Amino acid sequence: MRKGIYLENTPLDEALNIWTLRLDAAGIGPLEGESIAAKDSLGRVTAGSVTAVLSSPFYHSSAMDGYAVRFTDTFGASESSPRRLAVGAQAVYVDTGDPLPDGFNAVVMVEDANPVAGEAGKKGFIEIIQPVAPWQHVRVIGEDIVCTELILPENHRIRPVDIGAVISGGHVDIPVRRRPVVAIIPTGSEIVEPGTELRKGSIIEFNSRILSSLVHEWGGEPLRLSPVPDDIPLIKQNILEACKKGDLVVVNAGSSAGSEDYTAKAIAELGEVILHGINIKPGKPVILGWVQNKPVIGIPGYPVSAYITFHLFAKDLIYRWQGLDAPEPEFVRAKISRQAASALGQEEFLRVKVGKVGENLIATPVSRGAGVLMSLVRADGFVRIPAMSEGLGAGTEVDVELLRAKKDMENTIVCIGSHDNSLDLLANILKKRHPRYSLSSAHVGSMGGLIALKKGEAHIAGTHLLDEETGQYNIPYLLRLLPGRKVTLINLVYRQQGLIVRKGNPRKIAGFQDLIRDDVVFINRQSGAGTRLLTDKHLREMGISAADVKGYDREEYTHMGVASAVLTGIADTGMAILASARALDLDFIPVARERYDIAVPAEYLKFEPVAALLDLIASDSEFKKEVEDLGGYDVSDMGKILYES
Amino acid sequence: MRKGIYLENTPLDEALNIWTLRLDAAGIGPLEGESIAAKDSLGRVTAGSVTAVLSSPFYHSSAMDGYAVRFTDTFGASESSPRRLAVGAQAVYVDTGDPLPDGFNAVVMVEDANPVAGEAGKKGFIEIIQPVAPWQHVRVIGEDIVCTELILPENHRIRPVDIGAVISGGHVDIPVRRRPVVAIIPTGSEIVEPGTELRKGSIIEFNSRILSSLVHEWGGEPLRLSPVPDDIPLIKQNILEACKKGDLVVVNAGSSAGSEDYTAKAIAELGEVILHGINIKPGKPVILGWVQNKPVIGIPGYPVSAYITFHLFAKDLIYRWQGLDAPEPEFVRAKISRQAASALGQEEFLRVKVGKVGENLIATPVSRGAGVLMSLVRADGFVRIPAMSEGLGAGTEVDVELLRAKKDMENTIVCIGSHDNSLDLLANILKKRHPRYSLSSAHVGSMGGLIALKKGEAHIAGTHLLDEETGQYNIPYLLRLLPGRKVTLINLVYRQQGLIVRKGNPRKIAGFQDLIRDDVVFINRQSGAGTRLLTDKHLREMGISAADVKGYDREEYTHMGVASAVLTGIADTGMAILASARALDLDFIPVARERYDIAVPAEYLKFEPVAALLDLIASDSEFKKEVEDLGGYDVSDMGKILYES
Repeated sequence: MRKGIYLENTPLDEALNIWTLRLDAAGIGPLEGESIAAKDSLGRVTAGSVTAVLSSPFYHSSAMDGYAVRFTDTFGASESSPRRLAVGAQAVYVDTGDPLPDGFNAVVMVEDANPVAGEAGKKGFIEIIQPVAPWQHVRVIGEDIVCTELILPENHRIRPVDIGAVISGGHVDIPVRRRPVVAIIPTGSEIVEPGTELRKGSIIEFNSRILSSLVHEWGGEPLRLSPVPDDIPLIKQNILEACKKGDLVVVNAGSSAGSEDYTAKAIAELGEVILHGINIKPGKPVILGWVQNKPVIGIPGYPVSAYITFHLFAKDLIYRWQGLDAPEPEFVRAKISRQAASALGQEEFLRVKVGKVGENLIATPVSRGAGVLMSLVRADGFVRIPAMSEGLGAGTEVDVELLRAKKDMENTIVCIGSHDNSLDLLANILKKRHPRYSLSSAHVGSMGGLIALKKGEAHIAGTHLLDEETGQYNIPYLLRLLPGRKVTLINLVYRQQGLIVRKGNPRKIAGFQDLIRDDVVFINRQSGAGTRLLTDKHLREMGISAADVKGYDREEYTHMGVASAVLTGIADTGMAILASARALDLDFIPVARERYDIAVPAEYLKFEPVAALLDLIASDSEFKKEVEDLGGYDVSDMGKILYES
Repeated sequence: MRKGIYLENTPLDEALNIWTLRLDAAGIGPLEGESIAAKDSLGRVTAGSVTAVLSSPFYHSSAMDGYAVRFTDTFGASESSPRRLAVGAQAVYVDTGDPLPDGFNAVVMVEDANPVAGEAGKKGFIEIIQPVAPWQHVRVIGEDIVCTELILPENHRIRPVDIGAVISGGHVDIPVRRRPVVAIIPTGSEIVEPGTELRKGSIIEFNSRILSSLVHEWGGEPLRLSPVPDDIPLIKQNILEACKKGDLVVVNAGSSAGSEDYTAKAIAELGEVILHGINIKPGKPVILGWVQNKPVIGIPGYPVSAYITFHLFAKDLIYRWQGLDAPEPEFVRAKISRQAASALGQEEFLRVKVGKVGENLIATPVSRGAGVLMSLVRADGFVRIPAMSEGLGAGTEVDVELLRAKKDMENTIVCIGSHDNSLDLLANILKKRHPRYSLSSAHVGSMGGLIALKKGEAHIAGTHLLDEETGQYNIPYLLRLLPGRKVTLINLVYRQQGLIVRKGNPRKIAGFQDLIRDDVVFINRQSGAGTRLLTDKHLREMGISAADVKGYDREEYTHMGVASAVLTGIADTGMAILASARALDLDFIPVARERYDIAVPAEYLKFEPVAALLDLIASDSEFKKEVEDLGGYDVSDMGKILYES
């Protein structure tokens, strides 16, 4: 194993600058053109201006159904003195689009031409009662497009209407830029293709699929090579092969400085490593290189790092080859809902969910691990925390770089509070019934949810707070935390809470009394969670001191987190709902049945997405059934209004 | 020929309502799902929720290069009393991503482990100087995705990150909605495929290519059938065939009520015509029908009508089949720059160009013909003029439904004024050099341009106004029309104006004296055009009365319009620049050499796109060369500042 190899810590701006200068120096610009059928050119970029080689229409044609006439023949026509024109000689019937016969220069609409029977009853003449203007109801040559006219400029992304105009202007084919080919090499001895039988240590390869899809979105052509094990000669051979096939070579991963990170070495041996390591988080171990006159990027293995660095260093380049500027991201100004500390000296890309609550856009940080791809799936945008900052205080105004349309955010219900497995089902059924609405949940515990409502950071909150004095759920807390606010409390479920243990209960845990055993490790919920209060209540009732419970200080934020910790042996037991034990096929020792409600401030009851959600809770039988199928739920009061202040 | 068949005039809202109710009644909703490889699912829509079948990671893995340890073995480690761990038994080297050996539950970073040589110099031990926390530097099972967790809800359009998460969650395939198939039947005996040899009366078929591309953009699968002549049995046969293959059948065109319009008849004979004719312009002759339990739409033949009606009646439907709501169009509020009259009783879809001048968004109507596809190519959006309105006065605030991104508009130079062929070249070179900038030109004549500058509706104006008193170009007009405004005048070209005549000058026109001949038809420019002033000046000088010039009242708005009118025999001659004669291979009788300048108010000189444009005018040799190649231009002063107020 090698040691003591450290990455550089080049500031992002500097790195981007170095990269751009290098691309400039290499003369990287729009790729050569290729001729393709105009009908297949949607989304491609013109490689030259397109001018009409044919006028449209290319002959004078009738714009109406009627009679082509010579306007001079109609002079003097009036009601008292209609003008009679011989059909065939002076008036020729034309349908819309028909060419005008030579020498004719106007059209009389069929409604304005009165047929007069000629010999043997034939319509030999028409009569008109007013003169016509020259070229009336005629689409003259070039009315739409005049031959030689510019139809599309160079560097124009082709839209549906453009295709019509190009064909109409006399073209069959159109010159478009060749799509830049991005060769992507997945590396790693441990990576396997999806569907392969897995063993401990296997990593399913999916980064290349994300990167390929991004290349697609940016107008390039991805070329994904087969995975290559951690072997320098093989990696080098693949990079050389990729240099032949691609305009850009991307190696994923092995871009760090660990004992099995060979990418930088391979690039250095074949060409040049321009830069290795930048001061961003996630995404630090990126490599910018140059091999055989081709740019080569070493992309980190953690998916969030891969996603971010690929955007930073490949996106502009792929657009540049097409002769386009990359579309500028959309930004919104939002308030950050909770504190986010950040390391000094590193620029952090914080993923946030964004929702519009009342007039405020609220950005809530999601998980920050570079390996947590779901943080990207769930995120609505990025907030950049500058290298010189130690983080963001709650309430700070930030610029959020959006990952989805601003409009979508206006149709998103922000749900902050306690976690329940049925919220996943609710999010799904909402999307299914109302595709434009989303339910975005952040799990900070029941207390956190009510505080978010108080601060105007959420539309709804899931809560299950038992007041020990009164024995009542939620209402005393509403009165205490949201005094004077009009809030409606709607029941979602009654649910079973208990101790989750591994299948077969190997530690033979029978109840709370076992938590003080030396061989039992507990996993707790964060403070402010209803389940934490429930745990503390039970400990108190049984006279157990928290200090005697091993693992009391280790916290998870969701029921599934607790269940997962038990499943994987991180802990032996923890308090959670039956549904989460069922989901992971664990055993369960019931402790309490509790009420889980949704709290909604009055001002959001009429907000359309919330109204739709409450309607689903009140009456969607598919949703009710799905929740029951999770196990441990009583849905008899689902949707019932329990309290209105 | 049939007569007296009239279209209905159903109001648009009513028509949409009838259509939606019919689709509802037919139970049209999300299509069935199909399973495809997740890696190929970009842009598709989930046909069911996707939950993880595997946790990610599915084993505890190291988050760092270092040593896997049992945290209990590290209790009590300190600088003064390092803890020594036997490599192999108590500390196992792991790279990032490696699984933790069974029973191990933390990782010490390689930097924090001090190797100690064992027997025979082997690294037999490591020493650490602080205890480690449980699960430190470990990616625990499910850190990213917990088995059973919701990854994607139903009805979700799949993005690059989603593909990664789905694969990571243990899937190879993903259930997505089948793409709705839209069978498009081009009809018309006169239509021919692009590239076919044309004869008078031929119409190149391109509407189906526009419609197919729109279907693509909306997520459907277009199926374009071969063109069908105007023959009822054949049309019916094709509709039946299309009903078998498509979810939606589109017949284009023959949707009006003319003698060769068979679509409504064919649909009626096969099934039902629900509605024929709506009160919109363009787009009136649309047919909504139902055949063999499939929706059938008869789309008008004029391309703008086709585009609008297809949006109105097919777009939502195609999204509905995918389980999505169609994305809502973006609107901006803009001021209409000139009056637009509109027929009472018809809802008009006015195409406008939009530019941001100072703080104002200005919408300028473009050509209104249903057959003018270029009006769509050039448009930035639609303004709907309600049926109950007789039009919009200049300066009215309107909502513009955008056809391109709002940001693009902020990078658009609005050029209103005189037309010159070199403006096309300028628009092209600007896009080539600066892909994000656009030059949008409206041709209203030199006077109109200066007035637009005065009213803050344009950034620049092209002008060639000769002041007869002083013999000076443009400056006297600037002083008169824009008193007190700081304006810079930059020369673009000197150019040759003259009388354009058909090739070989068949009418033997020698000069202005021939305009009074009986056999010579003139074509004029609109008043306010510099060329019109020039014409009037010459007529005056030669003592010719306008009344004696046949065609003096017929106006065109551009040089190319005049040239085209001469080429096609609408007129025998007209005043225009040499370049337009050259473009259409016409003959030219020189009359005057004139100066054509660009006027720029001082406040826009620093507006980046304008600055870039002026830079191109001043120094781009490719542009200069292209202008010279047009013919009749003197570019010796191109870019020279001639006046600054």
